[in-house]
Amino acid sequence: MGENPQLNAKGELKHLLSLEGLPARILRHILDTADPFVESAQQESKKVPLLSGKSVFNLFFEPSTRTRTTFEIAAKRLSADVFNLNIGTSSQSKGETVLDTVDNLAAMHADMFIVRHSQSGAAHLIAKHVAPHIRVINAGDGRHAHPTQGLLDMYTIRHYKKDFQELRVAIVGDLLHSRVARSQIHALTTLGVPEVRIIAPRTLLPSHVDTFGVQVYHDMATGLKDVDVVIMLRLQNERMRGALLPSAQEYFKYWGLTAEKLAYAKPDAIVMHPGPMNRGVEIDSSVADGAQSVILPQVTFGIAVRMAVMKILAESQA
Amino acid sequence: MGENPQLNAKGELKHLLSLEGLPARILRHILDTADPFVESAQQESKKVPLLSGKSVFNLFFEPSTRTRTTFEIAAKRLSADVFNLNIGTSSQSKGETVLDTVDNLAAMHADMFIVRHSQSGAAHLIAKHVAPHIRVINAGDGRHAHPTQGLLDMYTIRHYKKDFQELRVAIVGDLLHSRVARSQIHALTTLGVPEVRIIAPRTLLPSHVDTFGVQVYHDMATGLKDVDVVIMLRLQNERMRGALLPSAQEYFKYWGLTAEKLAYAKPDAIVMHPGPMNRGVEIDSSVADGAQSVILPQVTFGIAVRMAVMKILAESQA
Amino acid sequence: MGENPQLNAKGELKHLLSLEGLPARILRHILDTADPFVESAQQESKKVPLLSGKSVFNLFFEPSTRTRTTFEIAAKRLSADVFNLNIGTSSQSKGETVLDTVDNLAAMHADMFIVRHSQSGAAHLIAKHVAPHIRVINAGDGRHAHPTQGLLDMYTIRHYKKDFQELRVAIVGDLLHSRVARSQIHALTTLGVPEVRIIAPRTLLPSHVDTFGVQVYHDMATGLKDVDVVIMLRLQNERMRGALLPSAQEYFKYWGLTAEKLAYAKPDAIVMHPGPMNRGVEIDSSVADGAQSVILPQVTFGIAVRMAVMKILAESQA
Repeated sequence: MGENPQLNAKGELKHLLSLEGLPARILRHILDTADPFVESAQQESKKVPLLSGKSVFNLFFEPSTRTRTTFEIAAKRLSADVFNLNIGTSSQSKGETVLDTVDNLAAMHADMFIVRHSQSGAAHLIAKHVAPHIRVINAGDGRHAHPTQGLLDMYTIRHYKKDFQELRVAIVGDLLHSRVARSQIHALTTLGVPEVRIIAPRTLLPSHVDTFGVQVYHDMATGLKDVDVVIMLRLQNERMRGALLPSAQEYFKYWGLTAEKLAYAKPDAIVMHPGPMNRGVEIDSSVADGAQSVILPQVTFGIAVRMAVMKILAESQA
Repeated sequence: MGENPQLNAKGELKHLLSLEGLPARILRHILDTADPFVESAQQESKKVPLLSGKSVFNLFFEPSTRTRTTFEIAAKRLSADVFNLNIGTSSQSKGETVLDTVDNLAAMHADMFIVRHSQSGAAHLIAKHVAPHIRVINAGDGRHAHPTQGLLDMYTIRHYKKDFQELRVAIVGDLLHSRVARSQIHALTTLGVPEVRIIAPRTLLPSHVDTFGVQVYHDMATGLKDVDVVIMLRLQNERMRGALLPSAQEYFKYWGLTAEKLAYAKPDAIVMHPGPMNRGVEIDSSVADGAQSVILPQVTFGIAVRMAVMKILAESQA
Repeated sequence: MGENPQLNAKGELKHLLSLEGLPARILRHILDTADPFVESAQQESKKVPLLSGKSVFNLFFEPSTRTRTTFEIAAKRLSADVFNLNIGTSSQSKGETVLDTVDNLAAMHADMFIVRHSQSGAAHLIAKHVAPHIRVINAGDGRHAHPTQGLLDMYTIRHYKKDFQELRVAIVGDLLHSRVARSQIHALTTLGVPEVRIIAPRTLLPSHVDTFGVQVYHDMATGLKDVDVVIMLRLQNERMRGALLPSAQEYFKYWGLTAEKLAYAKPDAIVMHPGPMNRGVEIDSSVADGAQSVILPQVTFGIAVRMAVMKILAESQA
């Protein structure tokens, strides 16, 4: 267990780098910890003093206003001081290494780093490097992982479906480039979902998909048949222009989630999407805004889940 | 009254989108509410806890450091948490619609949006879309409106001239492209100013200026004659390069406010400008820095007026 | 003394613009004031309420994420509200002058400006212009000065060497373009260091170096001989591409600090660098990360020193 840099000697979560390697008890502990934050957000004041006096750094080597904002909100609601650093445009271009940047901020008495980087493994590298009292959260590294997204998805599924043990879940779209999907698959399996399906064109499947422990489908009709949860993936704009796909219209025709295709799923199936959505490409507006969509609740739960992760890390021992 | 999206069923201000359609009692209520904030700014601590625990989002689809800063200051002095989003460079470019962006931030439990957008009507669109508990302030939409600027101008005039009922006010310059001028004209008329004048070259007049209820002048000598208030408009740099104007020097010669031209106004006339100034283009430095200039007090009052608007909206019912 | 815009009529520090002209008692007072902040940073909550309710503006006409962040951290740990303005991309490009920008922010009840500008003298200009209750800190102006960097260097030297009276200090590298070096030399001399050495290639020496009161060396072996403190300067990337230097490799060979060259210094000599480092150019990694390096403590002390300067200025009289 000492080899997993996310866990301390007592097996408690110390950094959040990837959902892979996290046991079910830790996943459930995070989801449970998020519950009261979903409720406190309804109060007159949304703030709680758990991280008061702490310094949280949004260390974004790759820009992402949306993700940065969710962590900034979560940290400020916990009363932390938040510092936003878009490193792509600063010291990095002055030739400083990532670890030197991190060492400098640590020397300024940083308590927590939220790390976004285009290279897989960047958050791991930082977590292994920093002093024992500093905590690291991976906010997306290359194609590798985006664990808080995976966690908010699990929170959402548990909120609407209560129990993971009987579920059939389909993940649809660009599995090849998605750092979210791997986190989701691991978490779903760990939490006991008996049937996880992948629905994707062959050009958007990772080469080692057979090792994922999932069932692969190449059409929506059979793939969505009787599922409880449909998780749509975002199709990156740059993919649409590339050689992997004929066109956005063509993609929508075969893989876009419409009311007709959604009808293959169970009548009470929920529809999820990590955002931002490409309406009319991977999802039809009637579904995105429809009664089965839980896309906006995902966003709401995302703040609570990030607060929960920050609380757990801040209270963990080195 | 129910058709005005700015007002709730009781006729109270709920969003601030435009000064058009706002009755005099509401305008006066905002100005009165600003009074104590002008005074609290002189205190050792400038902060009051009125918006403590609230989340205010500066949602700038069009960049403006100055305007963004004024709202950020106002919100922080009210003890809110402030989140700055420059959307031009983020999700928008990922293909997400404005309303999806707004829905996402609302799902993160936003309480108030300060909206700046290059398209007229953007703030209205957002106000009509959001959940009932969310408040929207228009911080400038296309050529349409910039209501807090209009309000701070009214505050400034009332501060120096006490009573609107006897005033002669001249607005000078690029009426065609000014989103401030329309707000000003409406507010001045509503508050009872009997004589509002416009002084501008024909190429910088809106086509429907005859419907504004103002007197139009094409020279400074007669236009400024005996006025109590001179409101200079900013000449956008891009206009100077265009076909509408011969040159900055030429513009200054005819329309720039110099001490000589100001002498046509009443001896105690005040000079206003929304900033940032083009010295030597629409205004001479001797006037901008002169005894009759109230340009910097406008800025001071602008913070108090924005605090007042935020307070009123936060306390209003849906 | 009245002619030094940094000092008030009682000879107290009112602005921090340059270490030149500051007497030893003021330098020592700043270092003494920083002491408790080094300790408070170790506490559970790093925040103290000294600047609560104050508005501190990071007014960066030249971008610098690192320096901006250090001041933002210092101000927030003192409980101030901090506003970050990157002016290069805003009003400045709309034709507004620096002093108009400053006047506007002052009218918004700014209490303190942290100024970074590519032109020497910018912070002085602003300090002389602003109202008496406003305080100005120079965060780097052209090639002129970067006084808080100089102060944190003095704090570091005092921390490790206790007494300035017996020291031999060498400053190595690009003296020509360094705004840090001049501040350092003045401070070292003022605090009583008897021997300050400069080690640099002739092409990177300022023309009037003979007026600095230092000894100039053109090789590391004799220059570093028996020194107590080695201060390495950063080699700007742009210099390496210019005509002043043959290549980064060549520079490293002659002027880069390696373990071999460091052996010329006293065995307990400390190694300093203002960051960000170019490893393998002006400094070898074995030295940067070695036992004699105090480069990260410099960063830690830098926050405390900036807090100390802000406290002293905020408590000073006009």
